[in-house]
Amino acid sequence: MTSSPASMPDDFTAAPPTFADVAAAAARLHGLAVRTPLLESPALNERVGGRVLLKAETLQRTGSFKFRGAYNRIVQIPDAARPAGVVTYSSGNHAQGVAAAAAILGLPAAIVMPADAPAIKLANTRAYGAEVIPYDRNAESREALAEEIAERRGATIVRPYDDAGIIAGQGTCGLEIAEQAAAQGAKLDALLVCCGGGGLTAGCALAMAERSPGTAVYAVEPAAFDDTRRSLEQGERVSNAVGARSFCDALLTPEPGAMTFALNRRLVAGGLAVSDAEVAEAMAFAFRTLKLVVEPGGAVALAAVLANRLEVRGKTTAVLLSGGNVDPQTYAEIIADGTA
Amino acid sequence: MTSSPASMPDDFTAAPPTFADVAAAAARLHGLAVRTPLLESPALNERVGGRVLLKAETLQRTGSFKFRGAYNRIVQIPDAARPAGVVTYSSGNHAQGVAAAAAILGLPAAIVMPADAPAIKLANTRAYGAEVIPYDRNAESREALAEEIAERRGATIVRPYDDAGIIAGQGTCGLEIAEQAAAQGAKLDALLVCCGGGGLTAGCALAMAERSPGTAVYAVEPAAFDDTRRSLEQGERVSNAVGARSFCDALLTPEPGAMTFALNRRLVAGGLAVSDAEVAEAMAFAFRTLKLVVEPGGAVALAAVLANRLEVRGKTTAVLLSGGNVDPQTYAEIIADGTA
Repeated sequence: MTSSPASMPDDFTAAPPTFADVAAAAARLHGLAVRTPLLESPALNERVGGRVLLKAETLQRTGSFKFRGAYNRIVQIPDAARPAGVVTYSSGNHAQGVAAAAAILGLPAAIVMPADAPAIKLANTRAYGAEVIPYDRNAESREALAEEIAERRGATIVRPYDDAGIIAGQGTCGLEIAEQAAAQGAKLDALLVCCGGGGLTAGCALAMAERSPGTAVYAVEPAAFDDTRRSLEQGERVSNAVGARSFCDALLTPEPGAMTFALNRRLVAGGLAVSDAEVAEAMAFAFRTLKLVVEPGGAVALAAVLANRLEVRGKTTAVLLSGGNVDPQTYAEIIADGTA
Repeated sequence: MTSSPASMPDDFTAAPPTFADVAAAAARLHGLAVRTPLLESPALNERVGGRVLLKAETLQRTGSFKFRGAYNRIVQIPDAARPAGVVTYSSGNHAQGVAAAAAILGLPAAIVMPADAPAIKLANTRAYGAEVIPYDRNAESREALAEEIAERRGATIVRPYDDAGIIAGQGTCGLEIAEQAAAQGAKLDALLVCCGGGGLTAGCALAMAERSPGTAVYAVEPAAFDDTRRSLEQGERVSNAVGARSFCDALLTPEPGAMTFALNRRLVAGGLAVSDAEVAEAMAFAFRTLKLVVEPGGAVALAAVLANRLEVRGKTTAVLLSGGNVDPQTYAEIIADGTA
């Protein structure tokens, strides 16, 4: 039995991605995603006593890595399904990534966002031409609302992480890290990735397994949202405590994704957790010394290095800075005293 | 008549540098100065309707381009003169560049700094191991004080810009811009350089004249300190008004240097001036959209592009971001409202 791709636009995302999918994503993103630099800071190297290479996805289109996965997913939507557009749910970086990718491809995009989301995030998402659909986060389910819109319009849902196209797209970031490290003569002992639902971690782990198999990949999370760390230890998906809090707004997922965890369980060396105070200190260090604007969720991997959560002395460690979308008031408070 | 180099350590800096000096400086700095990236932001390109390439010297060792010139100057001090060390005067980026370069080379460094300089700048300079010599800016001349120290100790004065070794070192930044633009397939129509005493401008202009002769180089200054712009127009060095004010603390020089102006008069297309309000807006844009921390004096060239001071639509323009050393309080105020 065969069916036309147009009638089943989501099917290709049901199987977990392989390295070939990451390589294909890199070809699709060539010239569209920014090939962000792999930076080195003598001051950081001296501070930790090792070589640290910083992948600055803060400098990516839309200010985070999310454009990579969103574009790679949306560009594969069959022609017949394109006019109905895409729908997603997000209060932050994924919303902007989807909105920007849909705009480039000429698809309408609807983003379900909390009615009380920060004005700046609502404005940024609308600025990319997306339709923002507000919902009451105390009374409605954003997933159900997105499903209902997708059903009614025939729109394709672009999930934030548990999707093969998304994971492969985020993996292009890891592929670049492997290529850039090799070009700089660096043999990476470890790669530390900021982890929410695990899509970026899984994609990067796929790339490293193929291109830099001696590199241990770690998922770094806020201490109150260390579901991936505990899930890796226990060998099954476990959730975060209800009511858990962290100011790392980009990483507040309830539990690992099914597809991302299946990959991470196989490919990732382990999980690391950092406190909000350690994240704030990392953001202040990035301001003072690196001169890079990093948002809380984008700074957890750097925080793990600065807080000695992993032995990096005498080693070469890649650290992913995953995003820089932070509002000025929050940022001002953090750089003033380095605390959350 | 010949004399030993050791007895006349300063002589080689009396003649203006050539491109060969820039190339020699690049060889000396290889592996020591950061080869900072030439970045491209789709959002910035869209905003100005042209291609803009950003040379991020904010990511240089010590947070500004000043390390390049300082190291290139100090490494050429003859062995016999090294134990007596170096002395300079600066309240900011040059102080840190000299302190860091002297530390690497194992020379003692004395920096004459205002007693009421910001605590963070005094602390940073001391952190690189330099001796800070405070002076009363209302009662003493910093140049006279530095000369007196140099005389008494036999130390070598490392001037901030009017010195062939300094200019050649700063020129390595321009050399990298030419090389990186070519590698990215970009033919530069113009290069905009942040300009104080004119050392960075002169060095970059030397590099571009040799490696990218079709590129027009512009010196960009704060409107109240547009001495280079007016000097280029009038064909002779003119000074800024006494009592002129700007928050671009890195660019507050009284008039162009003699050596830098002789070069810039020959090599530079012209000068551009921006208001402090335009600089503040550029810093806020760099925070919001580029995710780069840029100090006031480091943002004037970006401000010139954003304020349409030069036609960049449909063209390819390189913009130098020369430094990122700004204190958190000042930065917080500027990103909050985008005004000085």
